[in-house]
This record gives sequence, structure tokens and C-alpha cells, in this order.
Amino acid sequence: MLRLYAMPGSGNSYKVQLLAALLEIEMEQINMSALDGSTRSGTYLEKNPIGKLPLLELDDGRFLPESGAILVYLAEGSDFLPDDRFMRAQMLSWMFFEQYSHEPALAAKRSIEVYPERAKGVTEAAKQTLLHRGYAALDVMESQLQKTDFLIGSKPTIADIALFAYTHDCDKGGFSLENHPHTALWLKRIEALPNFIKMPLK
Amino acid sequence: MLRLYAMPGSGNSYKVQLLAALLEIEMEQINMSALDGSTRSGTYLEKNPIGKLPLLELDDGRFLPESGAILVYLAEGSDFLPDDRFMRAQMLSWMFFEQYSHEPALAAKRSIEVYPERAKGVTEAAKQTLLHRGYAALDVMESQLQKTDFLIGSKPTIADIALFAYTHDCDKGGFSLENHPHTALWLKRIEALPNFIKMPLK
Repeated sequence: MLRLYAMPGSGNSYKVQLLAALLEIEMEQINMSALDGSTRSGTYLEKNPIGKLPLLELDDGRFLPESGAILVYLAEGSDFLPDDRFMRAQMLSWMFFEQYSHEPALAAKRSIEVYPERAKGVTEAAKQTLLHRGYAALDVMESQLQKTDFLIGSKPTIADIALFAYTHDCDKGGFSLENHPHTALWLKRIEALPNFIKMPLK
Repeated sequence: MLRLYAMPGSGNSYKVQLLAALLEIEMEQINMSALDGSTRSGTYLEKNPIGKLPLLELDDGRFLPESGAILVYLAEGSDFLPDDRFMRAQMLSWMFFEQYSHEPALAAKRSIEVYPERAKGVTEAAKQTLLHRGYAALDVMESQLQKTDFLIGSKPTIADIALFAYTHDCDKGGFSLENHPHTALWLKRIEALPNFIKMPLK
């Protein structure tokens, strides 16, 4: 059976947990935390030299880090990964956008607000920069979701799963979707998918 | 013909230029700059709402942003994109690692050193943090390149192209590969590939 090393309450881990639920893929789950030092331990770094969560372990003991790569691996052959060459590239484009421009703003801001120990030494100006960058990322999503129901067209792909994770609870980081109505509707569309699960918090 | 909007001297643009050279793909190139505001203009944002470079325009006028997605699109069917499902996922894992953990440290540090206007207000502590994160990313690469000639095995893939871009001139950002000998050898292996080109500076 597949094994997932995950952090409860982390959007990056939730992406994989949500896709696995939607595709009814069974996985053994091992809960870990990026906050207690265990992902920097020698035992864990042997499994994943990057020292981050989530991490997928295959039946044969091979390891795959990085949520985006795990999503692609699990979605192969399903409707969540399109066959068309350009659509697959578009989907990856949104997933790279998520890791480079979206997550570093929205997840970082949420982390500061949710985990008090991460707020230490963070200036008000730094918080404003994160808000500004986060809204810029949400604006990019909104401009697409005005045109299509999901990020690359009329059907959900793993790009939607990847961007759902840190958009669905962006209010925890102090963001509001009041001026992003199409993004708010898109969240509802994903929540209505068969087998949808909420983010595991423990 | 394919058209590439690129910034001379930018590693993210170089990734695409290098792969196109290696695969002998002809592209019309339009030079732009992320520093003169033109990537934030209305005309450009219509093409790419993310407002970044590079951007690929297909023959039929469709646009594809994000260097990693462009690499995948161009490499389809070539030896730079493996057929095996796990190897493809491993390759993407390195490419997400590059955009999330490697580029934000090495490219940011290089940017501060190369473009004086970007150094304004950057504290010594912030520079040290970038150095620390950059070396952590280089350590991850070195641990893999001790075991294999290229990042996912014995042959180069677009993961190697993606990570070459901001590793090959990391000295410009104040990094040394003295303690990363396998990474230094890997650079030479990539530079020895047929049709290799240096980073276009204009």
C-alpha cells in the first residue's frame, strides 16, 4: 500500500490527501510535523533530503517528495490529468505558479497568523508585502475563473486541487474573497466534487 | 513558428533557450525586461496575467507561462522527458524543488549582487538567510549527484536543465561550489551536451 508522510493542517499535505480521496486511492498515513524538528532528523532526511512534507512512499520503498510531483504521479490515467499536450502544460503552469507565486504569500501569511511562534520578528511591512503578493496571486486566478469553471477549462484537474489547498482557507491568513467572486464560486465547485474531504486537522 | 518572450541574463528564460538549443527547436525571440515595467503593462498582462518572463506563444496564438511548464511542453517526445511514470514524477519533483527552494534563494541572491537597484534596503541578515537557504538547496543536489550522473539517473532530463540555470553561475550570487564537487562535475556534463549554448546576455 502507498504510504503518505503528511502534516495535519498543512495545505501541501492536504493537496495529496484530497486527490487521494477524490480518486479513492487508499494510503497509509503517517502524521508528522514540520515544527518539531522531526523532518530535519537523519532518519527522515534519508527518505527525503529536502526535509519537507508531504512525502510519498511507494509499495517498493521508493520515495517521492514535492506535493506537485505526487499529484501528477497519483493522477496519471485519471480525469484529473488531461491527455492533451497543451492542457497538461497549462495545468503544470498553474501548479508552478502555485508554488512560486501563490503558496509563498498565502501559506506564509496563514502560517504567521495560525502558529504564533512563526510570527516572531515579522514586521508589519513584511505582513503587508505578503498580503499584496497574495492578492496579486488571487487576482490572476480570478481573471481565469471569470472565463472558465475550472482553471484550465470546464473540468477539474490537479491544478485546481493544488490551488484549492491554500485558497479555501485564505481567510485564516487575513485574506477576503469579497472582490474575487468567481474564485469563491470555484471553491464551491470543488467542495461539491464526489468524495471531497475537508482538510484533516489531526 | 514558436515565439519566446524572454529576458536576457535571466535564468528562468535561459532554461527554455537552452532546451530549445539542445533539441534544435527554432523560436522567434522577443527580448523584454522585468525591470522596466513592460511585463506589468496591459498589453503584456493580456498575454500573461502572471506578469513574468519567460512566456511561450504557440503558432496558433495560445500562450504558455512558467518556465517549468514550457520545458515540459517543448520536451514531450524527446529524451529529455522520460516515458516512465515514476521517473517523470521524480523529474517534476526536482523542478518544483527548483522553483520553491532553489531559485528563490540562489536567483534572489544573484539578483541583489548583479542589479544594484535590487540591493536597496536588503539587510546583511537577509543576505545571510539567502546564502544559508541557497547552500541547503545545493546540499540536496550534491547528495543526489554523489549517486547519479544526472538528477534522476544516468541521462539528462529537463530537471537538469531547470537546475542548471541558476546553479551554473551561482558564483555571481556569492556562492562557491568548492564543497560541492559532484555538482561542479554535473555542470561540466551539461556544458558538454551537443548544441549546448551559454546564457544569452543580450
